[in-house]
Amino acid sequence: MAKTYIFGHKNPDTDAISSAIIMADFEQLRGNDSATAYRLGDINAETQFALDKFNVTAPELLTDNLDGQDVILVDHNEFQQSADTIADANIKHVVDHHRIANFETAGPLYYRAEPVGCTATILYKMYKERGFDIKPEIAGLMVSAIISDSLLFKSPTCTEEDVNAAQELKDIANVDLDAYGLDMLNAGASTTDKSVEFLLDMDAKSFTMGDYVTRIAQVNTVDIDEVLDRKSELEQAMLTNSAEEKYDLFVLVVTDIINSDSKILVVGAEKDKVGEAFNVQLEDDMAFLTGVVSRKKQVVPQITEALTK
Amino acid sequence: MAKTYIFGHKNPDTDAISSAIIMADFEQLRGNDSATAYRLGDINAETQFALDKFNVTAPELLTDNLDGQDVILVDHNEFQQSADTIADANIKHVVDHHRIANFETAGPLYYRAEPVGCTATILYKMYKERGFDIKPEIAGLMVSAIISDSLLFKSPTCTEEDVNAAQELKDIANVDLDAYGLDMLNAGASTTDKSVEFLLDMDAKSFTMGDYVTRIAQVNTVDIDEVLDRKSELEQAMLTNSAEEKYDLFVLVVTDIINSDSKILVVGAEKDKVGEAFNVQLEDDMAFLTGVVSRKKQVVPQITEALTK
Repeated sequence: MAKTYIFGHKNPDTDAISSAIIMADFEQLRGNDSATAYRLGDINAETQFALDKFNVTAPELLTDNLDGQDVILVDHNEFQQSADTIADANIKHVVDHHRIANFETAGPLYYRAEPVGCTATILYKMYKERGFDIKPEIAGLMVSAIISDSLLFKSPTCTEEDVNAAQELKDIANVDLDAYGLDMLNAGASTTDKSVEFLLDMDAKSFTMGDYVTRIAQVNTVDIDEVLDRKSELEQAMLTNSAEEKYDLFVLVVTDIINSDSKILVVGAEKDKVGEAFNVQLEDDMAFLTGVVSRKKQVVPQITEALTK
Repeated sequence: MAKTYIFGHKNPDTDAISSAIIMADFEQLRGNDSATAYRLGDINAETQFALDKFNVTAPELLTDNLDGQDVILVDHNEFQQSADTIADANIKHVVDHHRIANFETAGPLYYRAEPVGCTATILYKMYKERGFDIKPEIAGLMVSAIISDSLLFKSPTCTEEDVNAAQELKDIANVDLDAYGLDMLNAGASTTDKSVEFLLDMDAKSFTMGDYVTRIAQVNTVDIDEVLDRKSELEQAMLTNSAEEKYDLFVLVVTDIINSDSKILVVGAEKDKVGEAFNVQLEDDMAFLTGVVSRKKQVVPQITEALTK
């Protein structure tokens, strides 16, 4: 039986890694013995904390060429966020909660997208619909992914379905949502021990917006100043990175996970458009955005509109 | 409450029209009172036969600008097959059974694609999952769409799910599948009373394939020769149409719905690639393709591969 490769996006976060493991389990339960989870990058500290907590091994790094291979994508669809050889793969199924763009297939496929806060919430529904038992470690990864994507239910992307799923899953996983959630988020929020390059790459995605390619990196922290004390170093690295990768715009979103606000730092010729997007004037290439925590809902659409209007 | 516009593809076939009406009914049952079905073109003779049989009024022709409007797409996703102002619409939901291409949204949405033979089959499953009662006329439209897309279950796109859905629905709709199905297909299969322009436009779709735009029209008939007796007239119209609309390639697929074969007629600079796609030599710009009845499964992927390799 041909292998089915299952993976989330590059620069994987907890949802990307967890959903790949969960989807592989789901496929195995459906009788697809060849379903195997992979990852497209390093495991971050938050995700490692979750994997350790529930005693799950991280998926292998994907190195195979996917030309002609069967593939299931979770937590992403845009090709530039996917494996380098994705355009030649045979995409059988996508489970995702993002906008659809820069995605195409040669033939029909299963595609399930829902505008909920987390891919794992959709996977949870898929288990329920089929009547599949959810093992404690799978429930643990689902809870971890939901807490991570929703910043403990505080993000505007968080829906009632995410909250309900987490409430049901916490008992199977045997965790206290608040206590475990804060521990997990804190495990990923330390920034002082990380290089500037690491911070900019840890949770970064590229987006094609009209004629522009925009890179948007997000760093979660309990102390915004701790990150932006390294502003000049960050700006230099963002400019170098943009020149190398041909980004027209690089936006760093530094998010305070306790107070649910963000400060952005922007480089690139079109940086004034980012100010327009949020109706603010950048000062020293920075702006404070009250209540902004979600790249998907509060950053990407706004910048897309400013760049394409 | 803002209106929700629901429609299938341009040059609507029975699935495109029926699925729009069915999805509007489904949305109404969910409490979305503003859900309204539309059509993007004329009702063909086969679809009119089905509407008459089940006493359903055809949806209104869409003429509104969709800028900023809420939209649900059924039976298609590619923008060139959709409303002219689709790129500015707020696409909330897609239910479809085709490949995904030339489709993008600014934000997250519901998207449900399954590789089954007919969109109505997916809608049938959605009613079942929610426990919604299916009214006789809705069941009748579902059956009609399944028979139409599967050519009475003979197309290779037809799956067990399509057959099972039709079996269950025929009792609700109170029809005999074979008798009603043949009557309906025959109602749409007469070609002598139709102009060449009408035949070429009746069930035609445009596809972007690598650097080329390919137009593929399909005509169902009980007599292939009856259609191709008008070959020179057809070729002339295909050339004129290609020049006007900038198609690089125009393929007419004339399908014998009784014997399940097709003959193709091809015009355009790249026409030899179409021969390559099917491993045949075109003779007089034509080729007989044994067992080919499905544009989606047996024509589009093959030509796409020949044009992009």
